[in-house]
Amino acid sequence: MKAFTQLMTPQEARAAFARAYASRPVGMEHVPVLEAFGRVLAEEIRAGTDLPAFDRSTVDGYAVRAADTARASKGAPVPLAVVGEVLMGQVSAVAVASGQAARIPTGGALPAGVDAVVMQEVTVRKDGTVFVERRVAPGENIVRRGDDLRAGEVVLRPGRRLRPPDIGLIAGLGHPEVGVFLRPRVAVIVTGDELVAPGQPASPGQVYDMNTYTLTGLIEASGALAVPFGIVGDSLQRVVEHARAAHRTADAVILVGGSSVGERDVVTDAIAALGDPGIIVHGIAIRPGKPTILAVANGKPVFGLPGNVVSAMIVYDQFVRPVIEALAGRSEERGAGQVVRARLARRVQAREREDHVRVALVERGGTWWATPVPGGSAIMTSMVLADGILVVPIGETLEEGSDVEVRLLGP
Amino acid sequence: MKAFTQLMTPQEARAAFARAYASRPVGMEHVPVLEAFGRVLAEEIRAGTDLPAFDRSTVDGYAVRAADTARASKGAPVPLAVVGEVLMGQVSAVAVASGQAARIPTGGALPAGVDAVVMQEVTVRKDGTVFVERRVAPGENIVRRGDDLRAGEVVLRPGRRLRPPDIGLIAGLGHPEVGVFLRPRVAVIVTGDELVAPGQPASPGQVYDMNTYTLTGLIEASGALAVPFGIVGDSLQRVVEHARAAHRTADAVILVGGSSVGERDVVTDAIAALGDPGIIVHGIAIRPGKPTILAVANGKPVFGLPGNVVSAMIVYDQFVRPVIEALAGRSEERGAGQVVRARLARRVQAREREDHVRVALVERGGTWWATPVPGGSAIMTSMVLADGILVVPIGETLEEGSDVEVRLLGP
Repeated sequence: MKAFTQLMTPQEARAAFARAYASRPVGMEHVPVLEAFGRVLAEEIRAGTDLPAFDRSTVDGYAVRAADTARASKGAPVPLAVVGEVLMGQVSAVAVASGQAARIPTGGALPAGVDAVVMQEVTVRKDGTVFVERRVAPGENIVRRGDDLRAGEVVLRPGRRLRPPDIGLIAGLGHPEVGVFLRPRVAVIVTGDELVAPGQPASPGQVYDMNTYTLTGLIEASGALAVPFGIVGDSLQRVVEHARAAHRTADAVILVGGSSVGERDVVTDAIAALGDPGIIVHGIAIRPGKPTILAVANGKPVFGLPGNVVSAMIVYDQFVRPVIEALAGRSEERGAGQVVRARLARRVQAREREDHVRVALVERGGTWWATPVPGGSAIMTSMVLADGILVVPIGETLEEGSDVEVRLLGP
Repeated sequence: MKAFTQLMTPQEARAAFARAYASRPVGMEHVPVLEAFGRVLAEEIRAGTDLPAFDRSTVDGYAVRAADTARASKGAPVPLAVVGEVLMGQVSAVAVASGQAARIPTGGALPAGVDAVVMQEVTVRKDGTVFVERRVAPGENIVRRGDDLRAGEVVLRPGRRLRPPDIGLIAGLGHPEVGVFLRPRVAVIVTGDELVAPGQPASPGQVYDMNTYTLTGLIEASGALAVPFGIVGDSLQRVVEHARAAHRTADAVILVGGSSVGERDVVTDAIAALGDPGIIVHGIAIRPGKPTILAVANGKPVFGLPGNVVSAMIVYDQFVRPVIEALAGRSEERGAGQVVRARLARRVQAREREDHVRVALVERGGTWWATPVPGGSAIMTSMVLADGILVVPIGETLEEGSDVEVRLLGP
């Protein structure tokens, strides 16, 4: 029988695991830009040419020399001879001299000789003459070649999760495809003789598997592909067989359940049998989530999570997610929107373990209040009702009303 | 030639559109729970039975009568006769009487007669006897039947975007499938003779299409399916043809470009030709985004967005996203994580239009500072560098250092 004689602190556990294993992206592929939203950029995006590639009008109106309009007003409009019209997508052959103007649409390429555009709304057209009723300054209503990007400038770097404006910019630079990191494959094996798959009849004493489902969602949210191996009973041989198959085919393996100190705990033995260096961390001073295993087998990370579904989610977020995100190539951690500052609605205390308290966020008078959700870690609804997690360090007490940081449960 | 003689305020535009059109989910389907992450729930989820369905141990140890352990201590352990062992997934036939105990694993069903579980770590086992070294209170280390959910209780309601704990709970209630709303199909047609698809050669005066890409990402982030119709030139006949095809096959249509007051603006005429009641709003006092069209044609929403890519993104977020999310069935707006409170790094001012300022968020000393990103709305990189949008109401000035709310650009 094993016992958690020495629990590592979460910090010690992370450091020990980091010494044993460094996760790197599993590879890259090229995908059409239209399919790149949400993927992780694997290459540097550099402007091949200036963006925009030519001086453009930002309004519908008339391209002019600004100096010609210096005295223009509604009472005394300045007449200019319209010598041409810029068509969209073409470069005008016309050059505009002093006393002249060219009709130009929004986005049109500026003709030679001009330095500003007068908005159509402040002009009156009469045959071949346009009367300008308001002065413009040089550069007004114009975006210059290279104002957005200069040729050679790096705009996006590897590791960025591509947002809508990012894929727009990649398209705007003329790329039909973009290099993104492959999504790592993460196997999930849940163990336990008491588990039944949803849709099957459950006898008294049996419960429906939840971990396969919560973990699949969390893995997908980390930018990886979940490979559910289903429910395996508590037989050592069957768990070892499934773990070996998962280890061969996936980039990371998660086993759930049976990592506590009970006699029937076969997950520990199964993980130890997968390869060297084996188990790095077994037991962490975190609540919930104590019976956690962090292991490395032949260069692949292997995790043993508690069977308790709330514990498994907290441990995933704290110890598994960063590893999976690194395998997926993500290097950015955007702070805003992941962490919310709030005031604590009631006192919470952590004793010998770092406490991960599920909290609901409620806004009152412009302030977010974090209210601990009732129910221990065996209560699934505590996670469903929670908006985020508040971490209370070992041995610390957070008083009612204190300012705290809440990490949001995404998305 | 048309002119924006009267711009509606954003509020007036929303109210006018809401009077003409109410968006509703386009339908529902049943999907395996494993594929439901991120989808929008279309049915009420009610607990069919109590959860858990039986009293369970939350630790590995011995099921006992708490009263028997009242005097237990390390110096004077209480001996109890071990009369049975609970196996996972089964209900023990053994009843435990006073002076007795049953071995029980984490998650095991409590046998009859007990009211607490002693953790294994505070026991010593000798053959058929277990010595208990610490007292337990009634109910300790137990989760009672129905503690999580009572049969009949409603846990999740339609309109919720399913998160990992939600799908875990649905599985935990025994459901292999779940009803979710269909993803609405949103057609995107970009117009403009100057546009070229990425990967094609661009002549001087031509630019690469960005709007198809940014809008596809935004539509997907709204929970819908984007149906890109590609680039259509500025010919009225071609735009009408594409708009009609899009209107027939999609649940909503977005046309981009050509909704300004220029003579070549065919999008307005094309939208007007689609059906009744037609154009509801043309021109909104928002910056960027003035030349926006909100229309309804034969019961389907149709939007005309500015060709300027930054303007199109802002207008999508303000006027299109809420409609598409409602078509997708989403009824929840989770505030935390979408809006961040920050201090303004420099003064901004709105004149006759509501100003949507792109800002970057930087944390200094526990406070988020919102810094306006340089570059007008023709500058795509202003959107790439921005973390969120700060709205300045018409005619208002926000001073440097003032507290503001920034709506984050997700995800």
